[in-house]
Amino acid sequence: MTERARVIGTSVPKRDGADKVTGRTRFLHDLELPRLAHGKILRAPHPHARIVRLDTRRAARLPGVLAVITGADVVQHPFGFAKDQLALKTGKVRCVRDEVAAVAAETPAIAEAALELIDVEYAELPAVFDPEAAARPGAPLVHDERASNLTDLRYQFSHGDVDGAFGEAAAVVEGEYRLDFVTPACLGTMVAIAEWDLRDQLTMWSTTQVPFLYQRDLAHALGITGDRVRVLQPPVGGNFGRGLDLCPIDVIAALLARPARRPVKIEFERLEEFVACPTRERCIIRLRTAAAADGRLLARDCHVVVDNGAYVSWGSTTPYVMLSTVAGLYRVPAVRFDTTIAYTNNPYSGSMRGYGNLESTFAVESQMDELAARLGLDRLELRRRNATKPGDANPQGFVIGSCAMGECLDAVGAAAAGLTPPAPGWKRGVGYAAMFHVGGGARIYKSDGCGAIVKCDDFGKISLITGATEIGQGSETVLAMIVAETLGVPLERVEVVNSDTAVKPWDVGVHASRTTFIAGNAARLAAESLRAKLVGMAAEELDVPAESLRMADGWIFVADEPQRRIAYDRAARAGHLREGGRTLVAEAFYDPPTGMLDKDLRGNVSAAYGFAAQAVVLDVEEATGVIRVRRVVSAHDVGRALNPGAAEGQIHGGVHMGLGYALSERLVVEEGRILTASFMDYAVLKAEDMPELVVRLVESMDEEGPFGAKGLGESGVIPVSAAVANAVKDAVGVRFTALPITSERVHAALGGRRA
Amino acid sequence: MTERARVIGTSVPKRDGADKVTGRTRFLHDLELPRLAHGKILRAPHPHARIVRLDTRRAARLPGVLAVITGADVVQHPFGFAKDQLALKTGKVRCVRDEVAAVAAETPAIAEAALELIDVEYAELPAVFDPEAAARPGAPLVHDERASNLTDLRYQFSHGDVDGAFGEAAAVVEGEYRLDFVTPACLGTMVAIAEWDLRDQLTMWSTTQVPFLYQRDLAHALGITGDRVRVLQPPVGGNFGRGLDLCPIDVIAALLARPARRPVKIEFERLEEFVACPTRERCIIRLRTAAAADGRLLARDCHVVVDNGAYVSWGSTTPYVMLSTVAGLYRVPAVRFDTTIAYTNNPYSGSMRGYGNLESTFAVESQMDELAARLGLDRLELRRRNATKPGDANPQGFVIGSCAMGECLDAVGAAAAGLTPPAPGWKRGVGYAAMFHVGGGARIYKSDGCGAIVKCDDFGKISLITGATEIGQGSETVLAMIVAETLGVPLERVEVVNSDTAVKPWDVGVHASRTTFIAGNAARLAAESLRAKLVGMAAEELDVPAESLRMADGWIFVADEPQRRIAYDRAARAGHLREGGRTLVAEAFYDPPTGMLDKDLRGNVSAAYGFAAQAVVLDVEEATGVIRVRRVVSAHDVGRALNPGAAEGQIHGGVHMGLGYALSERLVVEEGRILTASFMDYAVLKAEDMPELVVRLVESMDEEGPFGAKGLGESGVIPVSAAVANAVKDAVGVRFTALPITSERVHAALGGRRA
Repeated sequence: MTERARVIGTSVPKRDGADKVTGRTRFLHDLELPRLAHGKILRAPHPHARIVRLDTRRAARLPGVLAVITGADVVQHPFGFAKDQLALKTGKVRCVRDEVAAVAAETPAIAEAALELIDVEYAELPAVFDPEAAARPGAPLVHDERASNLTDLRYQFSHGDVDGAFGEAAAVVEGEYRLDFVTPACLGTMVAIAEWDLRDQLTMWSTTQVPFLYQRDLAHALGITGDRVRVLQPPVGGNFGRGLDLCPIDVIAALLARPARRPVKIEFERLEEFVACPTRERCIIRLRTAAAADGRLLARDCHVVVDNGAYVSWGSTTPYVMLSTVAGLYRVPAVRFDTTIAYTNNPYSGSMRGYGNLESTFAVESQMDELAARLGLDRLELRRRNATKPGDANPQGFVIGSCAMGECLDAVGAAAAGLTPPAPGWKRGVGYAAMFHVGGGARIYKSDGCGAIVKCDDFGKISLITGATEIGQGSETVLAMIVAETLGVPLERVEVVNSDTAVKPWDVGVHASRTTFIAGNAARLAAESLRAKLVGMAAEELDVPAESLRMADGWIFVADEPQRRIAYDRAARAGHLREGGRTLVAEAFYDPPTGMLDKDLRGNVSAAYGFAAQAVVLDVEEATGVIRVRRVVSAHDVGRALNPGAAEGQIHGGVHMGLGYALSERLVVEEGRILTASFMDYAVLKAEDMPELVVRLVESMDEEGPFGAKGLGESGVIPVSAAVANAVKDAVGVRFTALPITSERVHAALGGRRA
Repeated sequence: MTERARVIGTSVPKRDGADKVTGRTRFLHDLELPRLAHGKILRAPHPHARIVRLDTRRAARLPGVLAVITGADVVQHPFGFAKDQLALKTGKVRCVRDEVAAVAAETPAIAEAALELIDVEYAELPAVFDPEAAARPGAPLVHDERASNLTDLRYQFSHGDVDGAFGEAAAVVEGEYRLDFVTPACLGTMVAIAEWDLRDQLTMWSTTQVPFLYQRDLAHALGITGDRVRVLQPPVGGNFGRGLDLCPIDVIAALLARPARRPVKIEFERLEEFVACPTRERCIIRLRTAAAADGRLLARDCHVVVDNGAYVSWGSTTPYVMLSTVAGLYRVPAVRFDTTIAYTNNPYSGSMRGYGNLESTFAVESQMDELAARLGLDRLELRRRNATKPGDANPQGFVIGSCAMGECLDAVGAAAAGLTPPAPGWKRGVGYAAMFHVGGGARIYKSDGCGAIVKCDDFGKISLITGATEIGQGSETVLAMIVAETLGVPLERVEVVNSDTAVKPWDVGVHASRTTFIAGNAARLAAESLRAKLVGMAAEELDVPAESLRMADGWIFVADEPQRRIAYDRAARAGHLREGGRTLVAEAFYDPPTGMLDKDLRGNVSAAYGFAAQAVVLDVEEATGVIRVRRVVSAHDVGRALNPGAAEGQIHGGVHMGLGYALSERLVVEEGRILTASFMDYAVLKAEDMPELVVRLVESMDEEGPFGAKGLGESGVIPVSAAVANAVKDAVGVRFTALPITSERVHAALGGRRA
């Protein structure tokens, strides 16, 4: 490591940024291949129905149609988190997105026309849309072969004397918090291209964000071995967790490509994206919190009901993270947690940025404000008294290393300072919320590692081949920075390669805000190994011991005699372009020093933890219920801001998504049908809707993190809705326990207070 | 290494074969990109002329034209072997392929139309087309700034007492051999796509076969550093040496892409391919050979005149290899060699398979037959008496390791056995020729190395990322075999990746039949390193010392107790999918133990040498001069045939190309103009023209070669034309010293003998 960071800590534009804003990025949508066929999927029109007849003969006869398949025509295997669905449904359909047939044709229009020619007769079945109703005996069974609609998922945790704590508490608050479906609304819809070669090996071009798990899961769904699947990842237009599940689109593309004997591309239109893209799950959180008179938290007791939808997906595993919040956001000695996760005939969810933590933080932080009110304490002071500190071990056994939660809370005080007062008829409120999240990976799989290969060519061009996946989060930029800093070479000499599973070393994928930390450490280790080789070459050229040499600014020089130096690329050439020469390639694998949670959900799942606090300042017009967010102050313990501009950008994006969750976004699903299927109906906040954002990066310099960094990708989105709800309460005195807090709801709650 | 080879030595279909014959291969021609612009080049109509006026304004105004450039509009730097040309010529043109302007447009048709609108006025200059005339004082100067038309290239060598040897010889033969232009006639024409990104980094999709040298040379021509050039190599439809030079098409694509602000594709049509694809050079070889009465060679004296054409290319360096033949094909104690390489106003050549060795072998082996006749010795016996033996060091200092030249000569005896006798009016002849070529790389650059990275994923899929370049020669297949054999895993589990300079480690490129040997050794070393890691993981699982383990057929097992075993992919997963796990990546670089030739052209340039002998059996119709080749027997010391079917295929291809050179192919260039510019005029042999081919693979098991192998890519083509000429002489008694030996020439020489 150089003594003074040259690259780390400077704000570097994202590498993919200029291409994206100038329209140059070649997304998977843009990929054309010779002989490319286009696939379309026929979906169920009913949330629950038996398939009585399915006849594809008319469709198959349409000129230009290359293949029509149904579940009866293909060999497929159950897939998904609980292996409870087939890509092409047989027997019955369980939600309105269910896939019953697919067509490959010369053009998308022909494929679309062919869908119309598929004759399907359904017998509708009684359906169930409420998870609590679904869990009751006698409810219509979503999966006939199961005894009930309860899934096999249940997250139970208990630590300390919860009942005792509630008995002796000075204050107890409780509430039921209802969170609804939202969708990531990625600007780039889902796409899959599948191609079988003549050796029966499958190449997939995919929008996945977990290519190696995808390789495994897709192979399983197709009944082939994983070594026969190669995954290519062109740039994606957003993912936000969408790409964590293997989805029917991927399996169907592969199934279609076999009889079509062509590469087959399936590309969602916007409507289909709203219907079939994984969403954030619908859930009900029932939480009680107990505190002592001085504000010390004594216990929390939580029960979460998750609407699983028709099939189990990663979305139903979010209680895993909700528990971490309930047990780990602030010091709390006694915790009880349980879940009900039930099948319904609703669409099923997936993973989405923040992954349960938005939902649980909404509940937990709503109750922090209520406790402060109940105990007559300042809301920030209550939080400071309960703040996690370095060295803490929480009820689950998470071991806290670096932690600047207190500083984050301090940094969001006086959030409204300098703002013009609210207009007449408007009430101002300030709300606070903090956040606790993994920041050093999350060992959900047996390996939480990432590999890296670094090479240096004769021109001093450094290639980092990383296992990591870029989904717009800026990982390529920060990984290049880590390599440049480690090697002491100019940043522009470093290229990042990460789009082909046949090339890149293994990585779990993008989730749990892990890429900078895990892939960053792998890149750093590989670069250190390369540096040692390079310095060895320079030592030979300069005729000095390698130990005496340092690298910085593209030079390798004698530490005590900096004028004795050689350009690093010259050293590379000198070591290579001679008899008995060598080229420069090094590799590393980093797996963090963590463990998987045991069956009691205990263990230390991450090598570092991130903390943040937010303040939301907003004005509410009492007559109309209109909310105008004026300012969000977001303070984040990021360990170290490797690329401060990008870190700030991640937080901006998170706050944007969080404000949508809090105020405007809702995927309206009624009787299993999705009613908001365009950007005319689904209200993503526009640039003009955004308030002033103030980001404060707090550096706690994590010991395990690369150059001190911790994960950050999700922390901006997590506390927003809680802080908004607390601010609305502060402004107009009404506590909202369901999201989004729309003007209509506020207006209704205020009863036209000034009307 | 496993005890018994499982993969090596079996005939495995080429991996690219099925895709190619079924039309699935995606050549560079097939690549479409969003916003792709199409480039066309305007060439000089005169072999030598001053550019008086060059006005592109009309072309630039054509709708759909994106950019028009001339040498005046761009910053370019001289490139080529002698750095004596600009991609876009300024001042004057020196041959008819000279590029004077280029257009990028929305479509190829618009670009073509725009070329017509470029106004160029030329003042024709006296031209020179004969290299010997060009070398004389007073000849028109091709390059005005030079004192004469002699290039700076001269290959001079002298060893032993040549004049003394000629004085005491029992027989001396001499002759002048005239070789003409031929073209590789690749079915896939040359293509280049250039794209500058917003960081001003250049990505080139290219038909190059030396991507890292191309990266260097293109950067130099553009005046940028090599680290800003990334080279991508889609499959090519043949190369045969064409891709060794950087060509104007590549530079112009890059120059056009800047003002077009788009990716620009230039794709040669067939006519343009005939005009602008590098050819085999035109030359005159004057050779004398002296022998003792017992047939022992005493000396050779050779002078080669090369028609350099307008610019120096790799084609003018072929005397470097011609010398190796003159000094190294058979034992010859005294050798003198010199060259005259002169600029002319002809098109310039490039490198082409065999690279000088066809030409010099034609001369040398023609004289072997003449010596046999003069001394009354059997032609094969004369050759046997002079055959190179293992342990020889030749006059240049080449050190011969494995060598089965004698066996190869033995193997081609009785070549005509079993053939039906010639028809009435036809005369049968049998001709022999042998061949000596580098077979273990050729250190022409300071590094003759290649890098390899091998990784194994959780599914047991092995990726070999090799520096090597596949140009249809079958290298991917043989490299996969080497890795599979080294690891003891099934061949189908091994993938080869080799198409991106940002990913693959360094390699000189495809030339000198080096890939199997050099890249094969690199792959073997990397695989050995991976195997050690994998065996270490298995040792942990099986709880035995790693030394006790072996790998074969996908299993890792205890040598003495083969039933104690673990599947290799399970071992990989066990080593990875745990806390503190590792993934499997290994790398290696192999640079052969050789040296560059010194200024006197001495040294040991290759780590192994290949030998071959051929017999050609043909019938000549005396009345018409028509030649029908009946059989070619080709015996090759390949060290070891790693993939016998592919080795045979390489030889088949070589013989096809050699027969074309001998009998039918000639790029007719008259007064600097190319008159054969389609497959109607340029006579490549068709499948139905091919004789029976008998290949005998002789295995000398080279100690340094991977699994004993030596290079083979060029050896099939080298002796053919000499053997054909010797067979024609044998049949009808006429010695042809110029190629091709067409029916017309034979007819003329026979004077209508039976007419």
